[in-house]
Amino acid sequence: MAGSERRGGRRGGKARAAGGAGAGYGALRHPFAAQGAFSDDEIAAMHDTALRVLEDLGIRVLLSEARAILRGAGAIVDEDSAMVRIGRDMVAEALRQAPRSVRLRAADPARERVFAPGEMLFMAGAGCPNVTDLMRGRRAGSRESFVETLRLQQVFDVIHMHGPSAEPQDVPIHLRHYAMMEDQLANGAKPLFVYARGRGQVEEAFHMIRLARGLDEAGFRDGVWATTVINTNSPRQIDVPMARGIIDFARAGQLTLITPFCLAGAMAPVTVAGALVLQHAEALAGIVLAQMAAPGAPVAYGGFSSNVDMKSGSPAFGTPEHVRANLGSGQLARFIGLPWRSATGAASNVADAQGATETVMALWGAVLAQATVTVHAAGWLEGGLSFGYEKFICDVEALQVMAALAQPAAADTAALAFEAIAEVPPGGHFFAAAHTMERYETAFHAPLVADLANHGAWRDAGGLRADERATAIWQEALADFTPPRACDGAAGRLARWVADRRQAGGMPPEEM
Amino acid sequence: MAGSERRGGRRGGKARAAGGAGAGYGALRHPFAAQGAFSDDEIAAMHDTALRVLEDLGIRVLLSEARAILRGAGAIVDEDSAMVRIGRDMVAEALRQAPRSVRLRAADPARERVFAPGEMLFMAGAGCPNVTDLMRGRRAGSRESFVETLRLQQVFDVIHMHGPSAEPQDVPIHLRHYAMMEDQLANGAKPLFVYARGRGQVEEAFHMIRLARGLDEAGFRDGVWATTVINTNSPRQIDVPMARGIIDFARAGQLTLITPFCLAGAMAPVTVAGALVLQHAEALAGIVLAQMAAPGAPVAYGGFSSNVDMKSGSPAFGTPEHVRANLGSGQLARFIGLPWRSATGAASNVADAQGATETVMALWGAVLAQATVTVHAAGWLEGGLSFGYEKFICDVEALQVMAALAQPAAADTAALAFEAIAEVPPGGHFFAAAHTMERYETAFHAPLVADLANHGAWRDAGGLRADERATAIWQEALADFTPPRACDGAAGRLARWVADRRQAGGMPPEEM
Repeated sequence: MAGSERRGGRRGGKARAAGGAGAGYGALRHPFAAQGAFSDDEIAAMHDTALRVLEDLGIRVLLSEARAILRGAGAIVDEDSAMVRIGRDMVAEALRQAPRSVRLRAADPARERVFAPGEMLFMAGAGCPNVTDLMRGRRAGSRESFVETLRLQQVFDVIHMHGPSAEPQDVPIHLRHYAMMEDQLANGAKPLFVYARGRGQVEEAFHMIRLARGLDEAGFRDGVWATTVINTNSPRQIDVPMARGIIDFARAGQLTLITPFCLAGAMAPVTVAGALVLQHAEALAGIVLAQMAAPGAPVAYGGFSSNVDMKSGSPAFGTPEHVRANLGSGQLARFIGLPWRSATGAASNVADAQGATETVMALWGAVLAQATVTVHAAGWLEGGLSFGYEKFICDVEALQVMAALAQPAAADTAALAFEAIAEVPPGGHFFAAAHTMERYETAFHAPLVADLANHGAWRDAGGLRADERATAIWQEALADFTPPRACDGAAGRLARWVADRRQAGGMPPEEM
Repeated sequence: MAGSERRGGRRGGKARAAGGAGAGYGALRHPFAAQGAFSDDEIAAMHDTALRVLEDLGIRVLLSEARAILRGAGAIVDEDSAMVRIGRDMVAEALRQAPRSVRLRAADPARERVFAPGEMLFMAGAGCPNVTDLMRGRRAGSRESFVETLRLQQVFDVIHMHGPSAEPQDVPIHLRHYAMMEDQLANGAKPLFVYARGRGQVEEAFHMIRLARGLDEAGFRDGVWATTVINTNSPRQIDVPMARGIIDFARAGQLTLITPFCLAGAMAPVTVAGALVLQHAEALAGIVLAQMAAPGAPVAYGGFSSNVDMKSGSPAFGTPEHVRANLGSGQLARFIGLPWRSATGAASNVADAQGATETVMALWGAVLAQATVTVHAAGWLEGGLSFGYEKFICDVEALQVMAALAQPAAADTAALAFEAIAEVPPGGHFFAAAHTMERYETAFHAPLVADLANHGAWRDAGGLRADERATAIWQEALADFTPPRACDGAAGRLARWVADRRQAGGMPPEEM
């Protein structure tokens, strides 16, 4: 909980009313030992094969500025084909320079987070063109839905970083970054997200952060105020805005999550091991570019590999291949020693049993792989084509269970309860035992959307499924929302500058 | 797959059609390192506290025959109160005698399983009074639904042992065991379940197994042909049929899963640690009784502790408390060195996102705790008050993902795919690569009920949720069902004897 906020974050609408288990879900460390899907030798072979891909085959880098940086650092560049071959010495040097731990800054100091191996952070579903909910149906993302889903991210403590839930498609692209930054800066007290859509938009977004948060250049560089996701164009290609983003974020000291999206059987080899080799090569190339652009730049290794469904061509989530790719990515990240980003998600079209199975399976994959941040952890439907409001609530339930598992369990003498067991006769019950009375208000995790009523009571209350109950929860969260105190005045500090920029015609994104 | 069967087991209706990943899901070993929720010292303290409960407080044993056995082995017995105090020396002796590994026999030799630490077996939801499906609604369990759900257990390879899905309430209780055994013996080629409802019914059930399977006494004792679940009456009480069941199964060399159902805050202390202490004491008492009745009798440690929802009084599943109880139970089982039984389950009333989240969360708890067998792993709704047909299918999906994760992943040079990566140009795709063409038919896990179609295709196909699609899958499985060849003739071999017993008035269960 954040004491500095007008209303503290919350563990979920009904959680508070029900008086659930104690601690907040802000700062979490991984509770389980890291698991793997491959042997240490196999991981070393993947790393070595990825180095051979970079050395012998190379990667196409479409931005000449990036090729120049890499050439200057020793890469072999063919300007005609834009192919860049990166030696393993360059990779080793980049990995030496990349920081292991960075501080994610936020408007509310209580929302700041350490981004380092062992930490467990969650981000909501991101980058969806559409949104869907049971009241209004499926529709293109709009500024209204962007603000709403931003507020949902702010409300639930278990979401640790803001993400670009769904695209506000009703705002023209040359003005969209103003809207997305204004809305984040006015509603979100957690670490912020900035799209890497070209130098102009990135610099303006950084400027808006400084304006809204009252930071000078030095203050802005003192930790990470903005995070972006860099997706390579698998296989073996980094396009113009992505390469520019790596350079610009690195030079500004801001964080890039360098994440190939390697779908085995489509843009990557059909084997999980082969997809991971490609992912690893591409992520390393991005990390090298960042470090050669600005030594010590904050970067995260990114793993988001899964398989493509051979019938539909769609990406699959929560499958054995996806879980295994998560586990293997974690092994590769530990092999190179960097914090890393994973993802869950769902292919399901609705917040049903399929969607929950996919996301919870993938969540365990990410947690057992000790992902530093797990993206798309709540609300991601249709393989990312829709952000679901009810799906978000149902997924937050799973994240809150995981967060509670990251809290210690009492096992002192009092918790072992010998005296209570002695007090209750055989065949009796513990409802009225002193041991119970002292603890029952905080003993158990309070569910967010789960309904444990028996069949008759459930039916009499309308017989609603979890997704149908979730509607009231997001509606209540939005109705109750008050912008965090830490964002007070942000809109005012931005208004004049943004109006001038809009007047001047805005800033288009960079061409691919 | 079982070559000796008329139709092999299957990985699920659509799985075969889709030509999914290779291996069957019959014999599985745990793929992940065992995880815990408590420190080694805390587990040792729980064990010690449980021993103190048995030594100093005692447990009420309602069956005088059981008290006599325990008294004969050194326990201090108060006949007036039926309280039995069991010394730690007796516990140590019992744990020395209990086998670490037993062989579960089955009509089909390919369905026989090793029951030992490290093995990963699943059982369907068991013991439900009701059944529910989307076609016929919620209703009392009947012989028809018993046969149907038995056949569903037989069809899916990932279900390893038969269980008493739902009670055939349309069969009078003095005849019910005949029906349940006839149906299992005619339809089920996997290890069988027998209820411990008194000596008469148990002996008749064992007799029916021998008759149907053509076994003499020695053949019946050569491994485990029947498994039962023993539930204590928490706190600290073992009733008449349960105590009798422990004795009779032990003397017949058949397996008891000795499972206190300790709901923290209700029949057990409100802390997970305290509930585990009570569970451990009660399970140890049952194990002692089994070993004192017949040294070397096959027994499993049973852990099924969770919390009670303080609002509804219902048991909770997939909660942090449930996952933690699973993890702690696994630690306690490893502490005493026995194979053990866990459980998943759901409180949800329907096969929705809540139900999937609960069961998949609990499944990971059971798997990370390395449960030898996980009961209620498919189809258990309403905390066990209903067996859901669609829930069964949705849960089998999750179990098949887990089973696939227990298969090794290829990471040899060919799987690392350097040549394929070299072959595909930057920005290209791997659809037509030789590496893909050679593998795509078996590269990926085939989903059972998940639909990965995009939104338009999904909507045009009816816009069905996973539970709605699951209906067609169980219907198809039942329509296609042919009894396994290994069960041929079983009904005929039983008919005369069962008719005689029915004629003679049957056999009532034992009073509590």
